Formats: sequence, C-alpha cells, structure tokens
Amino acid sequence: MNRKIPYRTYLTEDQMPKYWYNLRADMKDQHDPYINPGTMKPVQYEDLLPVFCEELVKQEMNTTDRYIPIPEEVQEFYKTYRPSPLIRAYNLEKELKTPAKIYYKFEGNNTSGSHKLNSAVAQVYYAKKQGVTSLTTETGAGQWGTALSMAAAYFNMPLTVFMVKISAQQKPYRKAIIETFGGKVVASPSNTTEAGKAILASDPNSGGSLGCAISEAVEQAVKTPNCRYVLGSVLDQVLLHQSIIGSEAKMAMDLLGEYPDVVIGCAGGGSNLGGIITEYMADKLNGRKSPAFIAVEPASCPSLSRGKYAYDFCDTGKITPLAKMYTLGSGFKPSPIHAGGLRYHGMSPIISKLYHDGYIDEVRAVGQKSVFEAAQIFSKAETILPAPESSHAIKIAIDEAIKCRETGEEKTILFNLTGTGYFDMVAYMQYIDGTMEDYIPTDEELEAGFESLREIPLNSGI
Amino acid sequence: MNRKIPYRTYLTEDQMPKYWYNLRADMKDQHDPYINPGTMKPVQYEDLLPVFCEELVKQEMNTTDRYIPIPEEVQEFYKTYRPSPLIRAYNLEKELKTPAKIYYKFEGNNTSGSHKLNSAVAQVYYAKKQGVTSLTTETGAGQWGTALSMAAAYFNMPLTVFMVKISAQQKPYRKAIIETFGGKVVASPSNTTEAGKAILASDPNSGGSLGCAISEAVEQAVKTPNCRYVLGSVLDQVLLHQSIIGSEAKMAMDLLGEYPDVVIGCAGGGSNLGGIITEYMADKLNGRKSPAFIAVEPASCPSLSRGKYAYDFCDTGKITPLAKMYTLGSGFKPSPIHAGGLRYHGMSPIISKLYHDGYIDEVRAVGQKSVFEAAQIFSKAETILPAPESSHAIKIAIDEAIKCRETGEEKTILFNLTGTGYFDMVAYMQYIDGTMEDYIPTDEELEAGFESLREIPLNSGI
Repeated sequence: MNRKIPYRTYLTEDQMPKYWYNLRADMKDQHDPYINPGTMKPVQYEDLLPVFCEELVKQEMNTTDRYIPIPEEVQEFYKTYRPSPLIRAYNLEKELKTPAKIYYKFEGNNTSGSHKLNSAVAQVYYAKKQGVTSLTTETGAGQWGTALSMAAAYFNMPLTVFMVKISAQQKPYRKAIIETFGGKVVASPSNTTEAGKAILASDPNSGGSLGCAISEAVEQAVKTPNCRYVLGSVLDQVLLHQSIIGSEAKMAMDLLGEYPDVVIGCAGGGSNLGGIITEYMADKLNGRKSPAFIAVEPASCPSLSRGKYAYDFCDTGKITPLAKMYTLGSGFKPSPIHAGGLRYHGMSPIISKLYHDGYIDEVRAVGQKSVFEAAQIFSKAETILPAPESSHAIKIAIDEAIKCRETGEEKTILFNLTGTGYFDMVAYMQYIDGTMEDYIPTDEELEAGFESLREIPLNSGI
Repeated sequence: MNRKIPYRTYLTEDQMPKYWYNLRADMKDQHDPYINPGTMKPVQYEDLLPVFCEELVKQEMNTTDRYIPIPEEVQEFYKTYRPSPLIRAYNLEKELKTPAKIYYKFEGNNTSGSHKLNSAVAQVYYAKKQGVTSLTTETGAGQWGTALSMAAAYFNMPLTVFMVKISAQQKPYRKAIIETFGGKVVASPSNTTEAGKAILASDPNSGGSLGCAISEAVEQAVKTPNCRYVLGSVLDQVLLHQSIIGSEAKMAMDLLGEYPDVVIGCAGGGSNLGGIITEYMADKLNGRKSPAFIAVEPASCPSLSRGKYAYDFCDTGKITPLAKMYTLGSGFKPSPIHAGGLRYHGMSPIISKLYHDGYIDEVRAVGQKSVFEAAQIFSKAETILPAPESSHAIKIAIDEAIKCRETGEEKTILFNLTGTGYFDMVAYMQYIDGTMEDYIPTDEELEAGFESLREIPLNSGI
C-alpha cells in the first residue's frame, strides 16, 4: 500500500454506526446467568425492573440480536462528540524505532474525558423515555460520574452520584465538574442510606469503597419512587453501548486498508477492552482470520490473571445479583493505586467468558510504575496526556512494538486510549517525584478475598 | 441550502493549510514600530536577536508577505492534533430557542487544552533549527506553559518556565503537567535572576505577577549562552501562527456554504481573537463583504474599552521594548479574576491598530459571573467544559443569539472556543457556591495605571 495514511482518521457523520453490535449473538456459549442471591435461582427480567429501566433490562438479557438500533436521540448526542479519531502513532513509532504500525482509537476527546459517555447517554435516554424521574449511580475515580452528569444535564434528568468519600476528598475537581453539570454528589458512606449508616456505625472514619457506593446507590434507587440505578461498566448492556468504539475503529481501519495483528485494551470492569474488541472478536467467534487479543490489568488488582472464575457479588455490600466472572472476591481489598478505574475485584461476565473459553489470547498484569513510564513516553511523542487506566494498554502496545524492533516484524497494533489524565495529576506528580510505589498482593492477601467466594454456595471446589 | 450540516466538520489532512496568513500584508496602515526604551528609537532587527531567534524576528517584522509557508516539520506536528473541528452548536441553539446559526471553532481538543500549541510548536521549531540549546518563557494561568512544554518535549528542547508564584501554588496540577512533559518550573519571583531578587528584596512574600515573570524569563534568556525567550501572545508572530485557526475555520465554513454575520473572540493579549478573525478580516481590509467583529474582554481588565492607545512596556519590569497598543498601563494591577489568560494590561499591537482604525466593530467588557453563567449553559448543551477565557466569547455569542430570538433575525454567528476548563475547577466551584465576585476597576484605579503611561516620553497628551 503506497498511499500515505493520515495521523488522524475521522469518519464522517454519515458513516457513523447506527447500530450497536451485540457480541453475545456471535458467542456459541453464553456466560452463566446472573443469580438472585435471595433465591439462588437465575435472575428473571422482572427481578431487575426495580433497579434498571425496562429497555436496559431487555438489552442485558438479549443474547440473540446481533445488531441493536441506536435510538435517533442517542445518535444525535453521539454526533456532538463523535466520531472519535483513529490515530496512527507515527511519532511513537519513531521514538521507539519500531517497524510496527501502531494505531489507537482515542476516546478522550470529549469533555468528560473518557469513553464512559457512550454508555451514559444511552442509559439516561432510556430512563427518560420510560418516564423515570431521577437516577442514582456511584463513582470511584470520577470518569463515570462526570460522563453521567453530562448526559443527565443534556436530558434534564436529576442525578445523585455516590462518590467514594476518599475520592471526593482527594479529587475535589471531579466533584466540581459533576456539580457544574448539575449532578448531586454525596460522599459515600453517607447517612442517607441504611447501607451507608451500617458502614459508618462500624467505622465512623471510613473513606468508603466502590462496593459501598454501589450498595448505597442501588438502595436509594429502589426506595425512591420512579428512580433507577445506572452502572458504567461490568454489565452486558455497557459493553453493548461501548461497541461503538470497536465498530468505528474497524470501519476506519478498513478505510485505510489495515487489519490489526494484535488488539490491546485495559481491563478493569471490562468496558474499555469490551469496547475495542467487538468487531474483531466477531471475526474470531465466526472462525475468520482475527487478531490476537491482549487484556492488560494492574498487577495490584489482577482479577483475570490471579482471580477465580466463580460466582460473586458485583458490590462489596452484597446486595447485587451474583455474576459468574473472574474475581478476586468481593472481600478483596485493592491497593491504593492511581488507576482507580481498574481497582475492581471482578470483571465483565462477557470478558470473563471469552477469556475462559480461549477467545482472549493473553492477559498481562503490569505494575503502575511501568505504566506511568509508558504514559510519559507516549505523552511526549503523541502530545496526549493519557489516563492511568488507558496507559496500561499503552504499556503493552509499547512492549509489543519494541519486540517488533528486535524481531523485525512489521506488526499492526491497535489499542484503545479511552481517557485523558487531566484529573490524575497527583499520580503523575508522584511518578515524577519518584514516590510512586508498586503494589503486588501476596498469595495470602488474595486468599482473604477468595474466602468471601467460598461463602457462596455455588462456588464448590474454589 | 437544504442539505444537513453536520455537528462537527473536520478538514482532511490534505486540506490543512500549508501557509500562515499574514494579516499585516493586507493592512493599509501598520501599527507603530516597537521602540527601544534605551534609545527611544524604533527597534531594529539586530536589537531583537539576543532575545528571539532569527526566523521569528523576521516574522515579527514581516509586513509584506501575505502568506508564509508553514515548515514541513511544523505541519507534521500540526497533523498530530489538527485539524480542529468546526462545530455547529445545534444543542445550544435549541436551548436558546434562537433562529441564529451558531458555529464555533474548537481549539481545546488537544491535551494542552488550548490553541497556544499552534504558536508553541512553531517557536520551538525555529529555535531548534537555529541551534538554540534552551528556551525560557513565563506562564500565568498555565495554558502557554503547558503547550510550550509539549512542543519542547517533541523537539527535545530544554525549557524553563517562570510561573507566577501564586499560580504555581494555586494550580499545582498545571505545574505537574509541565513537569510531566519535561519542563522546569521556577516559581516567580525567584532568586535566579536580578529582576526576581529585586522584587523579593522589596517584598519577600510577593506572589509574583505575569510582568515580573516576563522580566525574569527575558533576563535568563539574554544571560544564558545560546538561549532564547518565547512568548505566547501579544506579538505579531504569535498572531501569524494562530492564523491557522481562522484559515481552517473559513475553509470549513466555505465547504458548508456558510458565511458569518458576526465573528466573536475573547481578547486578553490578542492571540485568540487574532487567530479567528484573520481570513474574514482580509475580506474587510480589502473592501469585500465582511462580518461584524466583536472583541470581548473582562470588565476587570478592560484594556480596549477603557484603556489608552499609547506606547507601553509589554512587562511590568519595564525591560521589554515599548509597543503602541491599547493599555491600562504596565503599572495597572488587575483584579484576581479567574480568566488568568485575560489578566494582562496591554493588547496585541495588531488588534489595537485594527480597533483604532475601525476594523474591529465593537468591544464588549463583561463581568465574570455572567461569563460563568454562559459557560454553564454552554457546557450543559454542548458537553464541552469551556475555559473561562473562551467563555467570554460564549457569553457574547449567547447574547447575540438571544437578540436574534427577539428580532427573528437568522444571523450566522462564529466564535472561537480556544480552551477547556479542566484546570479551572476552583473557579467553577466558586461560581456554583455563589462566592464568585465581579470586579470592575474604578476610574481612580485606572488612573493609577495611566500614571505609568505618562512617564513614557512618547505619550504626550495621555
């Protein structure tokens, strides 16, 4: 191919996907069903209606329709910040002196700063359409809370965000941006829910946790009339909405006459990796030529590489349904690393199933210092300051490109850059100061998490 | 015109401008020359060589070449983050119920977060080409320091940024991002220069000022072998580099079959307004149909609307050449408003001359509370969190659109959105808390600034 490939490829508005791609329709085996912890039976459609709005429950359970139309109103919103560019990392290639071709899909060029907006707008839209009058959610690092507050402002939907208390204290600007968009921020644990009160009673100085914030948000949604809960990762519906990343990426790659040899995404709850792999995973699921898929996770919270494939609660308060997934146990206490978005004990059931069945080729767990080193190399070459979460994918993309330098292979590498690091400067400061530390849980620490799994009757032999 | 105009219009890489447009070539009368304060004679080419690198001095003095080629290497860098989108603000129009068509050129979608990168890369490139081995600059709010550190990292050029001390303390994350890109940050006033020592001797607790930081940066550049000083606004060369904003905007508008009735930009040092007006101002200078031009400035620092058209120093340390411009006097003490990028006593000599000669139709001075109100309306509708500086233009664009609602006119409005507000959350928090205040200088306060102008012999009758 002789023609010059541009740095940035944008689809036109007309070319933008009008359908979400539902990966499950191409999976021969589905992940095991969610289980109602009260009855220990599979969760039914009706069980979820008090928590999620109808259309989203339908999407959560839809394993048959390959393409699901993106509603006109959601398409309109997407047009305000999409399509996102597919970028050829010429400068990074030059810096690394690699024969590899490196591409990344950049989802950070909207003001929310991350890909979370893709699902936020869909979830708020369906809630609005159903006549829901308020929403609750939780946020840890703040990307999801920010995105959701923007979507809620657009659809004029009242929103309460339970923000992990320590995060609300450490990231006052994240709180401020949510409030600028009209969201109400409650530091969790709070006195507004039974779940919060219980935590505060046992530990008045608790800094909170994502698990506790989820419990509070779900509780408030269920007890407030006409209110629903929304979640930014893990769920099948979220991966469905995030498929727009992979659809756009493949369309742009096709236009350039490119096909990746390897596709890389970071894996926390799964929305990042699940977003980029979709259309290429379809090739693999259907037995066509396909890339190698690499999931990258933090060594401090290694659910795929060191976790169990078992049933577990999605929250630490143990009020959500049980999901079959790779997990460290809801009792696992993640280390205080800076990629807050990856500090989650479990993993998307879809991603877990794909990995378990061999469709995701490899998982690599990396320490945060090496991640920030990669982020700095990348930022200087590409003039984009990446979020710590996305930088996990950068780290492995750079490793792969360096391997190509050594072997002479001209691999085509594609990774997902889902967020910017504007609100992570404390982490960057620690890296530059040399005060950043790596945390790798000991086997004993992992065992403590696994204990919580063994309390669940479905997990025999764990 | 019946066809649908997209939300976002991106030029292709091939369509990107290969020349900067030099507005001065179309001006019948040039602004008065810079004056050497030592000799009180016009500054000569040679006078500037110890401070700026050669090619930039040539550009500063070039009033004849209408188009100046953008060097290949700078074009390559531009391609990593440009073209920037021209956005049709459908959602804002809907929110305002206006028949007006609102467009904005969005320069905030690069990691530096602002348009400053357009000139930063050019200035670093020319320095590198000349064999300069280090650069100095100053930064107040931090946009320029951030952009320059990114450009310096790309060209592997050592950089020292004198950052206004109070700003370095209040915006540690801005400091961190500059350091992530390898820039050295020195809080100003510092003990590293005579200018800094003099300030500290008289006021050990000084929080610094932009004027003092300029003095320190220039001093260090002049006394360090093979070092040069670079500046992010005010200068003719900066407006030249920023012309790419207006060139791209006009090309995109032409593609859409649109021509603006009014063009709006905020005016601090002039790089924002100077960037967007260029190609449309060419129409006016050449007697063709042209839009109305509106400059928007903060009521707290109203150099165009309440300043004098006079010779003044560009810094408060009085070591730079004198420029003929609208100014409040280098002795004027701007109020502590949040749009730090507009807190400057003077104004670009080109913008000043255009306004003086009637080519800029109108100046509006606005209070910061009304600016943040506009910013919040805009952000909720358009899902972009704007910088306080750019929000001055938003305020007037909204005012114009509301006027159209009242008169029924279907005006086409174009404004320049040059930056995002990620690092301005303290300001947004104050706005939301209701603790934000407006500052409007009294005539007596302005008089104190004008006194400093009267000390300059060239300013008789001021």
